[in-house]
Amino acid sequence: MNLTSDFKWGIALFNRFPKRINFLDTTLRDGEQTPGISLTPENKLLIAQRLDELRIDVIEAGFAAVSEGELEAVSLIARQGLKAEVASAGRGTKNDIDAVIKSGAQTISMIIPTSDLHITYKLRKTRDEILKATEDCVTYAKAHGLKVDLLAEDATRSDFDYLLKVFQTAETCGVDRVTPCDTVGILTPERAYEFFTKLTDSIKVPVGVHCHNDFGMAVASTVAALGAGAQEVHGTINGLGERAGNAAIEEIVVTLHSLYQQQLHIKTELLYGTSQLVSRLTGIYPQPNKAVVGENAFTHESGIHTQGMLANPLTYEPIAPELVGCTRRIASGKHSGSHAIKANLDSMGINPDEEQFKEILQRIKELGDKGKTVTDADVLAIAEKVMGLSGFKPIKLQEMIFVGGDPVTATASVRLCINGKDACGAATGVGPVDATINAVKRAIKENEPIKLEQYNVKAITGGTDAKVEVLVRMCKGGRIVTAMGTREDIVKASVDAVISCMNVLLTDYRDENNNNTKRL
Amino acid sequence: MNLTSDFKWGIALFNRFPKRINFLDTTLRDGEQTPGISLTPENKLLIAQRLDELRIDVIEAGFAAVSEGELEAVSLIARQGLKAEVASAGRGTKNDIDAVIKSGAQTISMIIPTSDLHITYKLRKTRDEILKATEDCVTYAKAHGLKVDLLAEDATRSDFDYLLKVFQTAETCGVDRVTPCDTVGILTPERAYEFFTKLTDSIKVPVGVHCHNDFGMAVASTVAALGAGAQEVHGTINGLGERAGNAAIEEIVVTLHSLYQQQLHIKTELLYGTSQLVSRLTGIYPQPNKAVVGENAFTHESGIHTQGMLANPLTYEPIAPELVGCTRRIASGKHSGSHAIKANLDSMGINPDEEQFKEILQRIKELGDKGKTVTDADVLAIAEKVMGLSGFKPIKLQEMIFVGGDPVTATASVRLCINGKDACGAATGVGPVDATINAVKRAIKENEPIKLEQYNVKAITGGTDAKVEVLVRMCKGGRIVTAMGTREDIVKASVDAVISCMNVLLTDYRDENNNNTKRL
Repeated sequence: MNLTSDFKWGIALFNRFPKRINFLDTTLRDGEQTPGISLTPENKLLIAQRLDELRIDVIEAGFAAVSEGELEAVSLIARQGLKAEVASAGRGTKNDIDAVIKSGAQTISMIIPTSDLHITYKLRKTRDEILKATEDCVTYAKAHGLKVDLLAEDATRSDFDYLLKVFQTAETCGVDRVTPCDTVGILTPERAYEFFTKLTDSIKVPVGVHCHNDFGMAVASTVAALGAGAQEVHGTINGLGERAGNAAIEEIVVTLHSLYQQQLHIKTELLYGTSQLVSRLTGIYPQPNKAVVGENAFTHESGIHTQGMLANPLTYEPIAPELVGCTRRIASGKHSGSHAIKANLDSMGINPDEEQFKEILQRIKELGDKGKTVTDADVLAIAEKVMGLSGFKPIKLQEMIFVGGDPVTATASVRLCINGKDACGAATGVGPVDATINAVKRAIKENEPIKLEQYNVKAITGGTDAKVEVLVRMCKGGRIVTAMGTREDIVKASVDAVISCMNVLLTDYRDENNNNTKRL
Repeated sequence: MNLTSDFKWGIALFNRFPKRINFLDTTLRDGEQTPGISLTPENKLLIAQRLDELRIDVIEAGFAAVSEGELEAVSLIARQGLKAEVASAGRGTKNDIDAVIKSGAQTISMIIPTSDLHITYKLRKTRDEILKATEDCVTYAKAHGLKVDLLAEDATRSDFDYLLKVFQTAETCGVDRVTPCDTVGILTPERAYEFFTKLTDSIKVPVGVHCHNDFGMAVASTVAALGAGAQEVHGTINGLGERAGNAAIEEIVVTLHSLYQQQLHIKTELLYGTSQLVSRLTGIYPQPNKAVVGENAFTHESGIHTQGMLANPLTYEPIAPELVGCTRRIASGKHSGSHAIKANLDSMGINPDEEQFKEILQRIKELGDKGKTVTDADVLAIAEKVMGLSGFKPIKLQEMIFVGGDPVTATASVRLCINGKDACGAATGVGPVDATINAVKRAIKENEPIKLEQYNVKAITGGTDAKVEVLVRMCKGGRIVTAMGTREDIVKASVDAVISCMNVLLTDYRDENNNNTKRL
């Protein structure tokens, strides 16, 4: 179902969208400049390949002149024969341009500042010198066969006429695209619309838009710029980038698709997976309430919402989860209304009568009022207690042992009882938690695939003997459930959480009469 | 320095800002509906008090009808005599309104759907029935002394004339404020401007704006609505809320202040601290690249950026960190004052000359600018480098091993080199971290007592192999110092942090001349 096909209102103020919107992804350049991120060339390649599948038009693969590693990464990606154009960033210096040439990238994102602030304080140069450098650098890069995208740094704080002069100079030297960068994120949508209208009226080559998110305006300003005639989006997956990051590609794509009815060539169903890959490889995860790709973006908990959702997803779901390759999740918690919990219990074959159900709801709310995160495992436990069900747990932990140290590879083994049968597993890991969870996975590996989707530990405060709260989210088939483990030992807490989550996924009371819970 | 005083451009398209912009914070209601969040009444009160200090005008404290705990929380906050107005949400039913009356809240945020989608599918009612319910409920609530803010649910997908009719009906019944809710986040700035212009032209009571962030547009649309004449912002700290959350109050405040030159009564310098409090109590942390309050928001890493920053912060810093109370982090918190650092160095027998001290301060600041938590161990390392000191570490880890499991008592041993001499220790603990740290303590036990005052682990997100950041604070005599360990193995990270903290406590350069660091 498409929201916008059911519903239209308002007059589109933005009426200058280009026929085709191009996407330049700079996750591997501006995104990688996020403090703490450092990608190996191999991991950069993995991301580049995924971006290519997503149908990104230009992949900015790095900043070739920065280091040998960067040059190698750009080279590696440039050699793959991807459908996407591969670009490298570089400043307006011969040295940087040469590095891009050496890397084999087709395109240089040539960064040249145009604001007096940057020209004076950072470069200690004059406007005329920058103009001359632009002429020289574009000419040099073009003469060496590069495509040139001129990125005017801090363009949105530049004297507009001067900026235009720089761009027009570049045009006479054969520049392929020009992109005014909103380096410190000060554009607002209506200003972006005005700015890009004026600019696209004065420039013949395609104009790109490159926004930063310091004020939370990057996506809105980017869309407004496109609506004013800009032709190319610069953005990053998950909005990664220095400070508050760049415009988030996934938000731009979905907004253009759903709110502006733009025909895009992007394979939107790969957005969620791409986001997950980037999170995993960079170690920087979007907050749960991040638009489009946050873990809560398609999760519904409160009663009012789930009730509506079950009647008609459109009530509270402006983006169909399938559009971005994600699945909907109904969470149980203290705000859950009866509808959500009923649906949840139903999927485990539990059908309480009215009286029992009221009691279950009551207990869930009490748990929530105590400040506890109510997980699916809690809902199951409550229902079993209220309804006098067997509470049979398909998986039980019999024993586990882990060892680690320095220099000792963290190693663990577990013995589980799975539906009455012994199952052992042993594994190594980066630490005792990782090793032990790997051992658990190994012990049940021959059975249906259960995936650990997310592993979170709440901040630990107090001492080395403080209680540790581990929250896990696992999925099997399309079903996603949560469970928690709370212990003083982080390894035990983690194993508790994982096993209790698995038990929720494997519990099925449909055949309870013949005492035959679903076997692994 | 203020960006906007140095720089202005563009014509403000939005010219209908109200004289005073009111702020309603719904962190405790819409924010608490975030799946996984569940606050105790006591924690809700802590947040409410902070919001009051921030000068929020209306605190939506909860949803009184949801549960006993919620009612209690709203009551508790309503009884405090805060400067802020205290509101509770409630649906358009007698039961919900009665709960609000019982709670003692001054105001009801009365949620009534106005879109056909919600009226038909969720409530299975007709437009006329909703109109009648609005009349009855507003009248009833007013008769019982409540202020009423009518929240029209899914207003942005409602028939505009019908929405107006609902609001006008409410007006005749004495409603105090009306707020069309952009329940699924489909407003875009230019549509918001149009929508709120029409609405504020037709309605006499103040109009609020309540946006959700499904498309990443919540802040931009909220600002546009205010620019069209809306008078009250609804938002949450950190943009918490169901799915992709609500408009983030901190982003709205900073945008209005810095990009639209609006005079606000909000104590902006409390924004960062408020965000931190909310993160800690909800367990939901903003992503590092979250605008305004993310841990990287005021961090600069790449060469180009730091170079510019050092020449003039304005080059890459559109928001002065002090504006939102973020100085502590940037300038390395408690180390920001030169007095503290001087005292600290002095206690280690390090006495830099003026030139050296300036350099040390500079480097500490650089580290802070990178968003790193600057610990005393970092300060020592910097001073040693700047002054060419030996960098001798009294304690070195030679080997460690830990074992644990179920049923296995967590046990560890370590072999340290303390001032060149072997020292072993073995101990048990509640888990591997506790056992290993106990073993370290044991190994140095015959010496002066060093106490582990605080042991903190940052929330771990991602997977069982995610990087773990351990921050410890230890004291010896009256002196307290901090250090950090970052590893994928929580035990190793903890040992790193503890040993490096102990080394700071035991470093003494007073006798450096006779190469005689203080012996244990």
